[in-house]
Amino acid sequence: MDIKKLLSPDRIAVIGASEKDGFGGDTCRNVITYMKEGSYYFVNPKRDMVLGEKCYHSIDEIPENIDLVVLCTPKSTVEGLIKKASIKGAKAAVVYASGYSEVGTKEGKEAEESLINLCKELDIALMGPNCAGYVNFIKGVSSFAFISEERDRKGAVGIVSQSGQLILSMMDNPKMKFSHAISSGNSIVCKMEDYLDFLVDDEDTKVIAMFLEGVKDTEHFIKGLKKAAIKGKPVVVLKTGRSEKGQKIAASHTGSLSGADKVYDALFKKFGVIRVDDLEELMSTAMAMAVLKKMPQIPNFAAMSLSGGETGICADLGELHGVKFMDFSCETLEKLNELLPSYATPNNPLDMTATLSYDVEKFAMALETVMSDPSVGLVAVGYTLLQEIADPAIHYMAKSMEIVCAKPESKPLVMIPFAENTRNDEYREKLAKIGVPVLPTSNYAFKILRNIADFVSYDPSKHDLKVEIPNEIEGSGGVLTESESKEIVGKYGIPFPKCVVAKSEEEAVKAIEEVGYPIVAKIDSPDILHKSDIGCVKLNLNSETEVRSAYNHIIRNAKEHCPDARISGVQINNMVDSGIEMIIGVNNDPQFGPCILCGLGGVFVEVFKDTAIRIAPVSYDEAYEMVTSLKGIKLLEGYRGNKPADIGAYVEAIVNVSRLACEHKDTMKELDINPIFLYEKGICAVDALFVKK
Amino acid sequence: MDIKKLLSPDRIAVIGASEKDGFGGDTCRNVITYMKEGSYYFVNPKRDMVLGEKCYHSIDEIPENIDLVVLCTPKSTVEGLIKKASIKGAKAAVVYASGYSEVGTKEGKEAEESLINLCKELDIALMGPNCAGYVNFIKGVSSFAFISEERDRKGAVGIVSQSGQLILSMMDNPKMKFSHAISSGNSIVCKMEDYLDFLVDDEDTKVIAMFLEGVKDTEHFIKGLKKAAIKGKPVVVLKTGRSEKGQKIAASHTGSLSGADKVYDALFKKFGVIRVDDLEELMSTAMAMAVLKKMPQIPNFAAMSLSGGETGICADLGELHGVKFMDFSCETLEKLNELLPSYATPNNPLDMTATLSYDVEKFAMALETVMSDPSVGLVAVGYTLLQEIADPAIHYMAKSMEIVCAKPESKPLVMIPFAENTRNDEYREKLAKIGVPVLPTSNYAFKILRNIADFVSYDPSKHDLKVEIPNEIEGSGGVLTESESKEIVGKYGIPFPKCVVAKSEEEAVKAIEEVGYPIVAKIDSPDILHKSDIGCVKLNLNSETEVRSAYNHIIRNAKEHCPDARISGVQINNMVDSGIEMIIGVNNDPQFGPCILCGLGGVFVEVFKDTAIRIAPVSYDEAYEMVTSLKGIKLLEGYRGNKPADIGAYVEAIVNVSRLACEHKDTMKELDINPIFLYEKGICAVDALFVKK
Repeated sequence: MDIKKLLSPDRIAVIGASEKDGFGGDTCRNVITYMKEGSYYFVNPKRDMVLGEKCYHSIDEIPENIDLVVLCTPKSTVEGLIKKASIKGAKAAVVYASGYSEVGTKEGKEAEESLINLCKELDIALMGPNCAGYVNFIKGVSSFAFISEERDRKGAVGIVSQSGQLILSMMDNPKMKFSHAISSGNSIVCKMEDYLDFLVDDEDTKVIAMFLEGVKDTEHFIKGLKKAAIKGKPVVVLKTGRSEKGQKIAASHTGSLSGADKVYDALFKKFGVIRVDDLEELMSTAMAMAVLKKMPQIPNFAAMSLSGGETGICADLGELHGVKFMDFSCETLEKLNELLPSYATPNNPLDMTATLSYDVEKFAMALETVMSDPSVGLVAVGYTLLQEIADPAIHYMAKSMEIVCAKPESKPLVMIPFAENTRNDEYREKLAKIGVPVLPTSNYAFKILRNIADFVSYDPSKHDLKVEIPNEIEGSGGVLTESESKEIVGKYGIPFPKCVVAKSEEEAVKAIEEVGYPIVAKIDSPDILHKSDIGCVKLNLNSETEVRSAYNHIIRNAKEHCPDARISGVQINNMVDSGIEMIIGVNNDPQFGPCILCGLGGVFVEVFKDTAIRIAPVSYDEAYEMVTSLKGIKLLEGYRGNKPADIGAYVEAIVNVSRLACEHKDTMKELDINPIFLYEKGICAVDALFVKK
Repeated sequence: MDIKKLLSPDRIAVIGASEKDGFGGDTCRNVITYMKEGSYYFVNPKRDMVLGEKCYHSIDEIPENIDLVVLCTPKSTVEGLIKKASIKGAKAAVVYASGYSEVGTKEGKEAEESLINLCKELDIALMGPNCAGYVNFIKGVSSFAFISEERDRKGAVGIVSQSGQLILSMMDNPKMKFSHAISSGNSIVCKMEDYLDFLVDDEDTKVIAMFLEGVKDTEHFIKGLKKAAIKGKPVVVLKTGRSEKGQKIAASHTGSLSGADKVYDALFKKFGVIRVDDLEELMSTAMAMAVLKKMPQIPNFAAMSLSGGETGICADLGELHGVKFMDFSCETLEKLNELLPSYATPNNPLDMTATLSYDVEKFAMALETVMSDPSVGLVAVGYTLLQEIADPAIHYMAKSMEIVCAKPESKPLVMIPFAENTRNDEYREKLAKIGVPVLPTSNYAFKILRNIADFVSYDPSKHDLKVEIPNEIEGSGGVLTESESKEIVGKYGIPFPKCVVAKSEEEAVKAIEEVGYPIVAKIDSPDILHKSDIGCVKLNLNSETEVRSAYNHIIRNAKEHCPDARISGVQINNMVDSGIEMIIGVNNDPQFGPCILCGLGGVFVEVFKDTAIRIAPVSYDEAYEMVTSLKGIKLLEGYRGNKPADIGAYVEAIVNVSRLACEHKDTMKELDINPIFLYEKGICAVDALFVKK
């Protein structure tokens, strides 16, 4: 299958060509508007002419071979037409028709299977079904089922979406400029993963934007993300399914497998993918990154507005979205004091006062002053660019920006409006040409600044860019005993207290010398999970008599409460001092493999959900970032005069558990190491539970 | 001072009338465009005509008395002109000039003082200085310093802003319709509080929108908020100063006292004020509430979009912003199943499919079906209304909405676009007329839906609409001893363990019988705060010997570590069982009086900041809402098989402490009751610290 025949064909044929509203008519109108003569053919058995151009009655009649066939016809005709097109040399097809797996019926699914098989047989790269087609803006190929205003949209954002409606909305948006726009539909042959791969390699695509409901070929998807991460090509993703309701909708919409949403968050963190909340944020983040001629060197920014009110909004939104405004250096403040009217107080964010916006030279100087501050990676100018220009300030400001941006030492610059509007075309274009994107209204704008800061902060070399996808092995389930679990975990360098599994009272007594007082005795059984609830844990034993008595009590309680439980004995453990109670957990996601979780134990994980999740394997840097991202990190750093805990040892443990998880991906379902005590020096895990697949 | 002379004058005089760009020229242009002939006069000593109208050389020459004088002239001329205008009958003035307290100089402050005194003397209601004036859209009075596109802006939102630039931005926004737009500037005579009061009483103002940097006359401000709360008139506030940087900027901008931001949050909760994050949210929340013909009866909503992608976005944004989509009833689902194409799966939010949007009758039926669901208070239709209409769906949808909205049983309806744009004027107006606001892009839209839900959920009768502003008494500071603090708190029904303050070893022994074993002994001194750190607390004493020894140790440790501390004795307390550790705190805000805080103790308050703050006095309902808003509420409700704690007793305690705080507002700075143990039945406080003003 050659995806280039699909996305970059030399000749296409539109079947079901028509003049009516609808797929056939709209596709033809798009083709005529955006494609060169001779690169397309129209086919309709009932028509000789369509929109003033020749229309063939059948694919066979087309005088030369074609690369791509675009089917605007109903489902029932699809397979026959693809066969005919294949004879005519076609290696690719776009299918708009719906009625396949997305309807959820047996017939739909069977039709989809049959279409997949046909494409395999004939080596056809198929887009859809149930899609809206695509436009290749670079080569000038349009196979798109909806009409939008005629306009030059050629640019550098490559977009691929599982929703055709959202692609149309993006086309309708005056600011958007694309390299490619692809509506993938049911993605049965060419998948989201294939399009991603294509766009990562495509030199004309500077930024990739995706609307994603779910992923089918995980390995391929990850290959694409990894390539993009290493290339430093931004991938911006709107993935629905964050909420339970959203997940249900995504699953029913294009029939995608829509995995646990937190796993996607973890996956995106690993590969530096920017995740956004809605369509506007998707479009504007992608466009901003496409328009900027360079990315900021550091993720701290400056803002300059024309009034105190706007400056206050910038300060508050900065804090809300985690966009950092560092204080200006004394040198910067001095220079600004000279430039600003006497009543102004320079600050970052800066109220530069309206007077400066009417003075090309002074505003340029203020811009350069702020840019030259070493703490500033990017400057945001707060100004509401409207559609109808009433205020002349923009004339002066744009000129200043042009002067400043032309200099090689200039830093990235963006404009932030405070009210929704269609931005004045002339100025938007002018600013885009000098590399200044006009962001959407402030709350979005600050989210986008944060996205840019995150992108700049991401360093692929600090991440382990592997994912260990488990093989589909259906195990018999069940859990290991605590001692078995601890043995496996212990092999990966996680320390546990000394422990002997005693199979008799005498063995228990013999174990005392080996493990040492004080002693904790616990039942060892794969069938008893809540040991302490049924009296199967005895703490702080300090004599032979106590150990004997504990052994017998534990065995008796186990037999009484769980008569059918398999019992491998009683663990005789050395009882260690308690430290700060932490946990490490693993959940083996069927699609993306082991996910590793860390956090404080007890109520902190259960009630406050203060945990960090990443996809294994994690590097030391990733694990460190997980731990420091916890709210409870303060408790580890030396809270209320306590000495700091050994964070390094805990981070090591996370890395080691992640390695364990990868090596057991085909046999492990879950792993729970809880608690792990953190001390001033070192750590000690006290319990472990290995759940088998 | 009569604010009506300022905001609703019959005749105004513009001094400094001009044809040039700037205050004078722009004010005259506005006056000519928006005011009736004969209701205004222009004055400029150097001109006979301005913009084709007669211009007087001096105020004296005006042939009749005036109500309001608008000064477009520099600061130096202001007082003289006001005196002259006063002779001509003026009882109000608008002063644009800057250079007063906002510049931070002594001269500026003195000029402001002098201007205030003059206004008092002449009984002048003054707007400004350093303001942009106002427009009364109902009566047709314009005293506004900036030019914006000519357009009918008469509507129902009354806006008052401390920033002139933001008022202009709102005027520039095509969707905005006002009753009044007021730029208050430095607010030295007429204050934000006065304008608020005016707008609450004003029958033409349906919704009040404010941009606020700080409040000067607290009592007056609260009076206005209370009146609005009782009337049910929405007050939407953008108050900067959420962040530390924002607070600094707000303080320097108009010289307002910008108090602790959390106190404002608490104040707004009490009075049901809607707090927003930026200008767009301010405008759109206010406009949505003005356009809606009725408010939803319940705060749960439904959404209907044309595609699965958009529906997924709605589901996720709903969860993100706390907008509740309840599941539809079986009846609703059945009806929708009949209306929708076979491949659609009805849900809330609903993917109604694009087909419905082209069918007036079916879409109307779907709308009515969704509206009639008992769980639905408001319906949001997800559709990107653009400026240029390309897609005919809006023609059909608008017609359906008109049909549905005309029925008396119809519920509130809004439209949610997914991309930023200027909305098509014709349709925006058409929809507004039938009571359907077009919200801004989705992320804003959902924030606004949440604002509406909060407004609908607010019930003034459940709040104690008082604020106890402390008198400005400068006390000598210091703290009470623990026993003194506990005595005061105990009088308000908060139980403490039995306690006797022993002044000698013998008294300590005598106290044993009264308080009972086990005993906790603690130093009682106003000068020793961290008692346990220096060995001044002894726990779990169970014999006379232990008590004697504890007494002596405590006294010795206190003298050793704090030789200068005043010691009133050693408290002999009964040691109570520990329960769930909670706190109640009070911070007496100089501007808004005692603020009361509740939360779980220890790391939960210090590291996780899981607290709720309200302004005293609080009603039982308010206190209950505080407690249930805690994340840690799960720990109180019976966590991990524990019995639920006595939440009611804790809520009572909060109410009682709030009463205590109000009654001690002039003498107390802080109060810290920490910990309070919550049991299955009842509570017991163990320590209290009363800090004096």
